[in-house]
Amino acid sequence: MKARVYVAMKKTVLDPQGQAICTALNRHGHTSISEVRQGKYFEIEIDGATDAQAELDEIAREVLSNPVIEDYRVELIA
Amino acid sequence: MKARVYVAMKKTVLDPQGQAICTALNRHGHTSISEVRQGKYFEIEIDGATDAQAELDEIAREVLSNPVIEDYRVELIA
Repeated sequence: MKARVYVAMKKTVLDPQGQAICTALNRHGHTSISEVRQGKYFEIEIDGATDAQAELDEIAREVLSNPVIEDYRVELIA
Repeated sequence: MKARVYVAMKKTVLDPQGQAICTALNRHGHTSISEVRQGKYFEIEIDGATDAQAELDEIAREVLSNPVIEDYRVELIA
């Protein structure tokens, strides 16, 4: 079974990397870009788990993200 | 208008970071995880572009990804 876990800074947390990209894009002529926030995602192959959703939630919360400053989202594909 | 750009290593390119995460998860008892590949994504706010899809394609290709080793995907949201 394939799954994706998306991890991004919480909306309330400053994302300097995204801001830098936004500034750079504006300077390169892409003036219609008003905000960029960067996150990361993980494509995970999971087989034979009794409860894939629960296991992925645990992995996302405890390994892949820092819940103090980041939000995560788990998406089961097939 | 909101859009997301996903950038990940091409399937044919080795992803050592993903492999390290996979090994670590297995060692932590998550033995049902057989593969992890890591990518990044960008949440972009774009306003007043005449052709948002085309502009985002250009940004993804020329700024956000390295087309030699990475694939990208653009997703317009609303």
